[in-house]
Amino acid sequence: MPASQTNKKISPQSLTNFCINALKKVGVSDADARVTADALVMTDMWGVYTHGVKLLPGYVKRLRGGGIRVDSPPTAAWAGPGWVLIDGGSSLGQVASKFAMSKAIEKARTAGIGYAGVFNSCHFGAAGYWAWLAAKEKMIGLSMANDVPTVVAPGSRNAVLGSNPLAFAIPAGASDPVMLDISTGAVAGGKIYAAQKLGKPIPDNWIVGPSGLPTTDLHLFPDKAALLPMAGHKGYGLAFLIEVLSGALTGAAMTWAVRAWMKSDPSLPTEHGAAFLAINVSAMGPYQTFADRIDSLVREIREAPKAEGSDRIYLPGEMEWEKYRVSQKDGIALPEDVIMVLKEMAEGVGMEMREIG
Amino acid sequence: MPASQTNKKISPQSLTNFCINALKKVGVSDADARVTADALVMTDMWGVYTHGVKLLPGYVKRLRGGGIRVDSPPTAAWAGPGWVLIDGGSSLGQVASKFAMSKAIEKARTAGIGYAGVFNSCHFGAAGYWAWLAAKEKMIGLSMANDVPTVVAPGSRNAVLGSNPLAFAIPAGASDPVMLDISTGAVAGGKIYAAQKLGKPIPDNWIVGPSGLPTTDLHLFPDKAALLPMAGHKGYGLAFLIEVLSGALTGAAMTWAVRAWMKSDPSLPTEHGAAFLAINVSAMGPYQTFADRIDSLVREIREAPKAEGSDRIYLPGEMEWEKYRVSQKDGIALPEDVIMVLKEMAEGVGMEMREIG
Repeated sequence: MPASQTNKKISPQSLTNFCINALKKVGVSDADARVTADALVMTDMWGVYTHGVKLLPGYVKRLRGGGIRVDSPPTAAWAGPGWVLIDGGSSLGQVASKFAMSKAIEKARTAGIGYAGVFNSCHFGAAGYWAWLAAKEKMIGLSMANDVPTVVAPGSRNAVLGSNPLAFAIPAGASDPVMLDISTGAVAGGKIYAAQKLGKPIPDNWIVGPSGLPTTDLHLFPDKAALLPMAGHKGYGLAFLIEVLSGALTGAAMTWAVRAWMKSDPSLPTEHGAAFLAINVSAMGPYQTFADRIDSLVREIREAPKAEGSDRIYLPGEMEWEKYRVSQKDGIALPEDVIMVLKEMAEGVGMEMREIG
Repeated sequence: MPASQTNKKISPQSLTNFCINALKKVGVSDADARVTADALVMTDMWGVYTHGVKLLPGYVKRLRGGGIRVDSPPTAAWAGPGWVLIDGGSSLGQVASKFAMSKAIEKARTAGIGYAGVFNSCHFGAAGYWAWLAAKEKMIGLSMANDVPTVVAPGSRNAVLGSNPLAFAIPAGASDPVMLDISTGAVAGGKIYAAQKLGKPIPDNWIVGPSGLPTTDLHLFPDKAALLPMAGHKGYGLAFLIEVLSGALTGAAMTWAVRAWMKSDPSLPTEHGAAFLAINVSAMGPYQTFADRIDSLVREIREAPKAEGSDRIYLPGEMEWEKYRVSQKDGIALPEDVIMVLKEMAEGVGMEMREIG
């Protein structure tokens, strides 16, 4: 790959088509490939490159291995007025998550609030994308998932819980949806993988080494190192809650029974769990009243006095919406490490990188 | 007060009676006084002295001023299958919160999940207590509330959001409920008030001064200083979500329209908002299956290898349950600053401190 290609901007449409084609090459239906591509490309448009198309090679590997299935769509296994438990059928995590959030939204239309828990899913990419699907329907959305342990508890030597992500999206009026998508680890594991790939150093408050004490040796991760939790006991506690809502309550695998989606035997399902909540604003009062209140909150924070040395206050998600608009206009500037893994994958499935250029 | 009294242990029953008597002296009904006393004393039994009976003098002051009303009980204003919006009637925050969590639990019995939003409430004490009420009913409980701004956003000079607390409680089988109760600020404001009262120093990552930059001058708080958010943009984002679920969605006052429960004109209602969620585990499958899964998760984490220098891993809430058992057995060891403010209050309403000794 010529060096000049690494800074090339790729149109969202081209990148979407590239993803769809790659997924179809390994047996995914056109509809499921589109669902997955839409999630990955939107994530890249938000500038969250650790959770966009970079994930595709891992998914393709497991699809080829059979651990992600293309022939058993997610189904609603049990349901009540405000909830549904979904068997992901070992399908792509994106396919199961799209189905699940749609069901949570459907429940919220009648009950006012809907919970969808998923078992037998896979890695679902950026949690924020699923929350945003609810915001598009003028509902408040939350999404979360468990994962194989990579984060220590205060006092533990090794990881005991996943970096269990949590995201929300709040619809507004004139403003963009207010969104947050966080790992309950001190940082997302993806940031350490990116640093490994690029040879960049990491600070001393991200990971602990084999003794359970902090280290800057990023190559210990993930086999001989673990992440610290976000804000100590607070992130640990939130990760526990997410493990319960995504795993204990749904019947999904928990902690070490979840298989690492990138590194475990690709012939096996990962058995991730996930949870989605939708709150139907319009059921509880006029939507416009709510939207006006959110817009006013957004204005109030944005216009608040700035700290010395600061010239702007961002709303949660505002940086992502700015990057989204740049991506729409100029194309997506994928980082070098993402281009590298896509190229490897493309070769593996007999595609050429010019399909995205 | 003789110095020896400050280390005296008070029986939960005596402390409860003291609270009930104090509240009845300012016109609160026996039932409402008991609801409030139970919440405050349980919080002290957990060792969370910043949010136990220490709050009573502030409530008594506002009850005497008329800003907290004793004659307008909370009512369900609007409701649907899985939700209810509650007019707190400017009653004690504890009274409104008990009513609201009961309604969320009631909704969850039929819909599987219940959301109760409250407007026109007051300060509700420790968020964790309300979440625990759901866990007592074998449901997963969440609780949260907004408050007058004390926390900056990344880049803001002054506070833009409250320290908006978030709590959960997860019922188990043989294990104690797993619980977390956190401020979305770097620390709870109560810890700074306690340091002021006791003349103790604070670290440099708790508050910012008038320029919006970090300071250790704790006497600037709260008028000329603000808290930093927990984990930077993560705590800021979570505080925003809580403001929306407690305030924007319920119709409660938001940000600066909320009145400081201790320091504002006590003849006025504070107009706090709050939100409660209950998830009915038994609606989604056999409770015992869930309880076994939680117990196994608890054991797995507790028994994980310890970090160098650590000999124990606590589950979220485990320290509080240990303190609870000590309080039950030996009585509650209220800190000196709490005894001091209770003494002042007792004199004000014509009670004597020996009522709790």
